[in-house]
Amino acid sequence: MTTPNFVACHVQAYLHLYDVTRGLRDGGTFLLNTIWKGEELAKNLPNKVKKYFADHNITVYYIDATKIAQEIGLGNRTNTILQSAFFRITEVIPVDLAVEQMKKFIVKSYGKKGQDVVDKNYAAVDRGGEYAKLDVDPSWSNLPEDAEVKNNDPEFINKLVRPINAQDGDLLKVSDFKGIEDGTWQQSTARYEKRGVATFVPEWIADNCIQCNKCAYVCPHAAIRPFVLDEKEMAGAPIAEGDSLPAIGKTFTGMRFVQAVDVLDCLGCGNCADVCPGKKGEKALVMKPLETQMDVQKEWDYCVNEVSSKQDLVDVKANVKNSQFAMPYFEFSGACSGCGETPYVKLISQLYGDHEMVANATGCSSIYSGSVPSTPYTVNKQGHGPAWGNSLFEDFAEFGLGMFIANEQLRRRLTETMKAATECPSCSQEIHELAQQWLDSADDAVATRAIADKLIPLCEACGCDICKTILDLKHYIVKRSHWIIAGDGASYDIGFGGLDHVLASGKNINVLVVDTEVYSNTGGQASKATPVGAIAKFAASGKRIRKKDLGLIASTYGYVYCAQIAMGADQAQTLKAIREAEAYDGPSLIIAYAPCINHGIKAGMGHSQLEEQKAVECGYWHLWRYNPALEESGQNPFTLDSKTPDWDKFEDFLKGEVRYASLAKQYPAEASELFSAAKANAQWRYNNYRRLAQQQWGVDPEVGNLPK
Amino acid sequence: MTTPNFVACHVQAYLHLYDVTRGLRDGGTFLLNTIWKGEELAKNLPNKVKKYFADHNITVYYIDATKIAQEIGLGNRTNTILQSAFFRITEVIPVDLAVEQMKKFIVKSYGKKGQDVVDKNYAAVDRGGEYAKLDVDPSWSNLPEDAEVKNNDPEFINKLVRPINAQDGDLLKVSDFKGIEDGTWQQSTARYEKRGVATFVPEWIADNCIQCNKCAYVCPHAAIRPFVLDEKEMAGAPIAEGDSLPAIGKTFTGMRFVQAVDVLDCLGCGNCADVCPGKKGEKALVMKPLETQMDVQKEWDYCVNEVSSKQDLVDVKANVKNSQFAMPYFEFSGACSGCGETPYVKLISQLYGDHEMVANATGCSSIYSGSVPSTPYTVNKQGHGPAWGNSLFEDFAEFGLGMFIANEQLRRRLTETMKAATECPSCSQEIHELAQQWLDSADDAVATRAIADKLIPLCEACGCDICKTILDLKHYIVKRSHWIIAGDGASYDIGFGGLDHVLASGKNINVLVVDTEVYSNTGGQASKATPVGAIAKFAASGKRIRKKDLGLIASTYGYVYCAQIAMGADQAQTLKAIREAEAYDGPSLIIAYAPCINHGIKAGMGHSQLEEQKAVECGYWHLWRYNPALEESGQNPFTLDSKTPDWDKFEDFLKGEVRYASLAKQYPAEASELFSAAKANAQWRYNNYRRLAQQQWGVDPEVGNLPK
Repeated sequence: MTTPNFVACHVQAYLHLYDVTRGLRDGGTFLLNTIWKGEELAKNLPNKVKKYFADHNITVYYIDATKIAQEIGLGNRTNTILQSAFFRITEVIPVDLAVEQMKKFIVKSYGKKGQDVVDKNYAAVDRGGEYAKLDVDPSWSNLPEDAEVKNNDPEFINKLVRPINAQDGDLLKVSDFKGIEDGTWQQSTARYEKRGVATFVPEWIADNCIQCNKCAYVCPHAAIRPFVLDEKEMAGAPIAEGDSLPAIGKTFTGMRFVQAVDVLDCLGCGNCADVCPGKKGEKALVMKPLETQMDVQKEWDYCVNEVSSKQDLVDVKANVKNSQFAMPYFEFSGACSGCGETPYVKLISQLYGDHEMVANATGCSSIYSGSVPSTPYTVNKQGHGPAWGNSLFEDFAEFGLGMFIANEQLRRRLTETMKAATECPSCSQEIHELAQQWLDSADDAVATRAIADKLIPLCEACGCDICKTILDLKHYIVKRSHWIIAGDGASYDIGFGGLDHVLASGKNINVLVVDTEVYSNTGGQASKATPVGAIAKFAASGKRIRKKDLGLIASTYGYVYCAQIAMGADQAQTLKAIREAEAYDGPSLIIAYAPCINHGIKAGMGHSQLEEQKAVECGYWHLWRYNPALEESGQNPFTLDSKTPDWDKFEDFLKGEVRYASLAKQYPAEASELFSAAKANAQWRYNNYRRLAQQQWGVDPEVGNLPK
Repeated sequence: MTTPNFVACHVQAYLHLYDVTRGLRDGGTFLLNTIWKGEELAKNLPNKVKKYFADHNITVYYIDATKIAQEIGLGNRTNTILQSAFFRITEVIPVDLAVEQMKKFIVKSYGKKGQDVVDKNYAAVDRGGEYAKLDVDPSWSNLPEDAEVKNNDPEFINKLVRPINAQDGDLLKVSDFKGIEDGTWQQSTARYEKRGVATFVPEWIADNCIQCNKCAYVCPHAAIRPFVLDEKEMAGAPIAEGDSLPAIGKTFTGMRFVQAVDVLDCLGCGNCADVCPGKKGEKALVMKPLETQMDVQKEWDYCVNEVSSKQDLVDVKANVKNSQFAMPYFEFSGACSGCGETPYVKLISQLYGDHEMVANATGCSSIYSGSVPSTPYTVNKQGHGPAWGNSLFEDFAEFGLGMFIANEQLRRRLTETMKAATECPSCSQEIHELAQQWLDSADDAVATRAIADKLIPLCEACGCDICKTILDLKHYIVKRSHWIIAGDGASYDIGFGGLDHVLASGKNINVLVVDTEVYSNTGGQASKATPVGAIAKFAASGKRIRKKDLGLIASTYGYVYCAQIAMGADQAQTLKAIREAEAYDGPSLIIAYAPCINHGIKAGMGHSQLEEQKAVECGYWHLWRYNPALEESGQNPFTLDSKTPDWDKFEDFLKGEVRYASLAKQYPAEASELFSAAKANAQWRYNNYRRLAQQQWGVDPEVGNLPK
């Protein structure tokens, strides 16, 4: 349908992003979901749109479906309200009949999820009539063109990314892709989207902030970050003194702390505000309507563009707070609002991003990490950042192993070259020394970065054959941090054979499994990570087989670092596990609990971090680490980090998520049995872990140390 | 080359099996490896061969390469001797040069295996001249045709199997395969081969026998079996009273015991004699040249054809001795002499063969279990026997799951039909009762067999619609025992993802992994089952990653029965594990240690059972069982069956196998490090098992029972 009679725009921001009236017929109808009304709305519409309304005699309606949905308790689900508005405005069938049919389908679609959900959707149908008509002024035909927005953004963004994002990709020529025909894509494109699609965004109240940075740690979109401004930076900042704090920490003496919010990239989940401990019971972050916060965007822009990183003044790996002074190399992804996966991906990028290499399995994590034209992976001011590639469900681990082995092979060649360089007569004494330093610390990311920065210009100046070879291999001078990122579908099921092979290989590769316990991206099918009792596709009456213990399986090798983490339950344990995994000179596997929209968290995805906390408290999820390095020093490699669960809360936890709660509604007879089984399984698993943690170690003369 | 100048026949028995002179040119040369000499040889040659020699003026040489190989210490490896004879007879190149080049290649081929092996092959070259010439009598031209051997064998054997075995398969017509175009193949074909290829076969000395049946238990080819003859059977037997014993056991009172040997199907490995405990230091089995034992074949034939099975007089699952009174449904396979795998496959067939269903992975086990036209799987007198199918390396487990699910689905339909039968007005009271009995014991193999035997004729007589449906489904009345059989390549590596999925499924499927620690059938490539230090393809300088603990991995599910066994180390534990696995109502995984020709056991494959014992004694392999049924009753599911190893014997064990010993020769510097690592890994693994076995269980109030 390229010439519709009716067009509805459900997201106000799209007025500026897309050509929303394209093809709408003369005398047609336009419906806009907006927070504006009447004259204010008219003022905020782009000239292009107003001109089209007037030129083509369009009837324009508007409704604040977002506000209505909030009031009803539907969160940001506006679809039923707008559907109802459509039927009422167009009268394609009699309104009474439309209402009746919509309600019938609501029972069919949501009946299984409980009467509560049905009632809310009924209300949405009823309130779909709360639209108003906008008077179209015929003089709008004479409005000038909207001023073209000038920017200094890279050509790549303006020439390729923006047209594709505006759904004009089919107008691009093949020659526009010259040089990247192989599929290479530039990093840092997501940051130019500035979609402004959140309804509510956090407002930072400096007075209530204790500078813990927990908010930044959990943000799925890296849209809230702490900045530390020195005197000069503070002087030039568009930030009132009262909207900053004296930065806590000896190395920050004399500087100011700002928790800046990128309101145009925020997705409004609210987890930052949810986890904020505040001061004396007062939160330092409060969710406010986006339109009230547009002014702070300039503060964000200033901090990002003009304030230098202070991350070298602290040890960013030391604790949660410090970690957030590190630049995220993963930002503004297209993941769902409140996504449980992306905070882990972001944290890893903060710790290792400038020398990180990622092999990504298919699944949500591949979609939000690299859907052309959006790349959330970014680079620092020196142009260093993660290298990222994506393969299939079934071979993601082998794909990552291939990256590792290619790198290993090239570094082996570099080692030979560096050896030659230490005694090359054409090279300077400085080159000799740097080459030797490299040989002595080739596996130290920080040291090799420093050497690379000094060595490369010297080699360029020298120009001998050996230096030329070093320059050919310059991308491999810095030690890489190898990561494989996958969901539970890929790692527990489809690609498990390969994952096992890679872990068994003994290579220094780190695997992050973001475990949503279900195939998230393909629509919620059951995987071997799905626990007993959960409803998922292919397990419509509740899964009957207990969840696979992927971490424990990997631990049987004895030389694989393994951990189960849940950021929302223990931010420090998450950081520790990632740090230990990366430091361990061998394979590592981290299984990270990740709430997902498929879980149907009743409290909403704005509480996904809190949901992780509840999961661990009630014994649904357990935190542990298996560190082979401990065994090498005669200690038990297994550490159980979870406290004894409060098992009484177990069933309440299940009932707080639609994937379980709906079982009770659909199959009440089986639900109670399956819930009991789920609890018993969780207890069985916890007791296994406890026994492992309590094992006597190193006291038996027969227990030898672990050979490498 | 269809018209050669020279033909050598390396196996005397082939004279009768194949057309060995076909195409040999007039005036050509024939070389025969034989134990006969001169006139005796002339007497034993088939007329057809003699006639050909005379008609075509053939020069005939013979040599007893088998005896020479024995004398040199090359076991049954006659190839170098016969190659040397070839060069000496044909003089295709000067003999001195041929000898020089052969010796050069011996160093190249076997140098890595040690000077000892080189010296033996040098001797083989030198003794290749010990051939003699046979005088060809021109009158042989007038010899009559050999008498056609008449037999009462099935048409399938004579029309299809024998031509294919004689390498005349290309002469068969498509129409000869009518009715089996889908690949179906009749069972029980291997028993008609009677190849007689063993050099030595066991002679049973009744006086020294204690009737323990250990010999039959370990025989890889089911070529030695205990028979119990009642008075009447004994009376008609071609067996001297002194070649039998009074059968031990109350239920055998008045009967005679015979340990019969099938000398024509025996491959002469000698494991039976090796494991024989004998009496007062005198073995009851002694290896003797085949030609001296030809007379006992008639004893075997009588026992197999005329003596009824006495297996119902004992509980065949009770112990090792009794198990051997059960008929093997797997016999005379094409596995190597001394194969470590087939005794396990055979034992399972003895315990469950009449209702067994096997999905076989690709690998040695698929080749020896079903290479057309040989099928070692056989049926009992009622025509009941295992159903067997083979799929690929990478999907064997799924293939077996498919068999299981198809069966489950058909039995579900049968259940509905039986319910209807209990109250069908057309059916007799007896049918009503049998149908009800079936419903009450559908998962009991013995009970359902008895019901089937009674019910099928009744249904045939009744002929109502319900009975017709029962008859349509009659193959599914008896409860099946589902087995998946695979090597370590398929199960540890290529098909592991699928195996994991099948084990996770919770279905009542039993998996036997015959673990040779290497890809046996494709030539000895390293798998994840290959231990540290072993030399294999792709691990030519010794494997550096420790062996994967497949059993422990599977045990993490908690509802998978797992065991590690080694028949040669503990015959009773092997039986117990198989019995428990089959009885457990859920998935089971048994990992069976299986010596292989690829190991290069220096003592020879005739001691493969003893090698298993050594492996366990020194701590190289561990015996254990994980039985979820124990946990259900509050006990520790893990039992360590191995005694504390004698670690001092560990290195000697390694040095007794070429796969390890050759490392010391090729890479002495690395060998000692890798041997230490292998030992340390074995200790690490043993200590893991011991800790698991020592875990406190059931005393903690938090440790709940295992929910199904």
